Amino acid sequence: MHILVTNDDGVQAPGLLALVKEMRKLGRVTVFAPDRNWSASGHVKTLDRPLRVNETLLADGSAAFMSDGTPSDCVALPLLGLTDPIDLVVAGINPNANISHDVTYSGTVTAAMEAVISGVQGIAVSMDSPAGFVGVLDYSTAALVARRVTERVLADDLPEGVVLNVNVPYRKEAELKGYMITRQGLRVYRDALDERLDPRGRPYYWIGGEAPTGVVEEGTDFGALSEGYVSITPLQLDLTNYKAMDVLKKWKFKKAKKAK
Amino acid sequence: MHILVTNDDGVQAPGLLALVKEMRKLGRVTVFAPDRNWSASGHVKTLDRPLRVNETLLADGSAAFMSDGTPSDCVALPLLGLTDPIDLVVAGINPNANISHDVTYSGTVTAAMEAVISGVQGIAVSMDSPAGFVGVLDYSTAALVARRVTERVLADDLPEGVVLNVNVPYRKEAELKGYMITRQGLRVYRDALDERLDPRGRPYYWIGGEAPTGVVEEGTDFGALSEGYVSITPLQLDLTNYKAMDVLKKWKFKKAKKAK
Repeated sequence: MHILVTNDDGVQAPGLLALVKEMRKLGRVTVFAPDRNWSASGHVKTLDRPLRVNETLLADGSAAFMSDGTPSDCVALPLLGLTDPIDLVVAGINPNANISHDVTYSGTVTAAMEAVISGVQGIAVSMDSPAGFVGVLDYSTAALVARRVTERVLADDLPEGVVLNVNVPYRKEAELKGYMITRQGLRVYRDALDERLDPRGRPYYWIGGEAPTGVVEEGTDFGALSEGYVSITPLQLDLTNYKAMDVLKKWKFKKAKKAK
Repeated sequence: MHILVTNDDGVQAPGLLALVKEMRKLGRVTVFAPDRNWSASGHVKTLDRPLRVNETLLADGSAAFMSDGTPSDCVALPLLGLTDPIDLVVAGINPNANISHDVTYSGTVTAAMEAVISGVQGIAVSMDSPAGFVGVLDYSTAALVARRVTERVLADDLPEGVVLNVNVPYRKEAELKGYMITRQGLRVYRDALDERLDPRGRPYYWIGGEAPTGVVEEGTDFGALSEGYVSITPLQLDLTNYKAMDVLKKWKFKKAKKAK
């Protein structure tokens, strides 16, 4: 069992090492991660410039690969043959939850998507740390949960084409309510435009506002976290809205011939 | 009717101007686009640095806004109030098709997603130009189709939460077979690792290989294009795989209490 561990926070992020230590209990681990933080980077593959790959050391002295590419590049390169064949990709641990509409923005989740597009199972792990938390985050519960979920995936395999999106409440393991299989909930983004003037009187803009919240609804990722459950959401890469297809099929277009 | 036109190829890309000219026939148009090319940029919102917004002129002498942010930023900023209120966002025209698994990588499609997340209707328009085409692309058919589809959207509105992904064959309008409402098909990526040595003998890597192809299947985006139809795919932001939820709900986790 050869597990690739990556993230979007950069190879030296504490959440990555916490994940690596638990994954080593399940098999051989290769770390291949970006050399810098790519949070909120989305699903980006680098095709317009070459990539460098260097070795580095994690804080426990173990070897890791780092690249100047994106999180998805750090999955694509090993899967294209830069390392020995990979059986499973686990991305994380992200210091903040990736739920609801976050998933297409998230470098953590899109790294796991990249694995699944290449035919390898992919799991994204994020931790729902409190908004505005200052200090040293404790990844121990999230790392343990990551191992338990990965054990299940190794035992039973994910359904074809599924990307597993795991979010862990920020609490001690004994205080977790359990594991809940969830659907994507509704995020409430509270972005606001923050216009400022530079020292030369010219405007610049922050996408500011408050941290996003969500609609607490039973059975959703956000609902599960707010009740203290680990949220496990199976995602797919088919974004087709099949119900809307039926509505749109009634549309007539000028000069359109009848579609088969 | 106030239409925002953006793209991921940069404000000076020919596909944008072609789209703008057709959209002006439907209402007031504001152009707000990146100051550089962000192809394959994914769904990226810039939260870690401030953004600049400048005015520029398109090749027909008309005014446009450009920003040093991503395509999604160029949607977020106007929708957060930097311009007058926007009724509809149209992104494109991308010089290459955005089908199947392309959609989460695509700056064009994710710009339209950004609109829908903010509660505004969003349409992405791409043109299926031949792989390896060299020369000046003709956007006239794709622009005309963009107008026809947008007219339908303005007349009937999209179903709630739907992002419309439009792909247009590269042919004259009279040679289009018609319009087809499609589902996401299967992409076949043919990426390959291309290792080279720099002048100092150190390796660097291109994600190389051949242009992606797809599985020709009736009713899919790729299938429609290959038959000469305009492909119109309604996408959604809920990526939950509901069937897989039933499978995963049978999983037992160590120490997990029963989820409600």
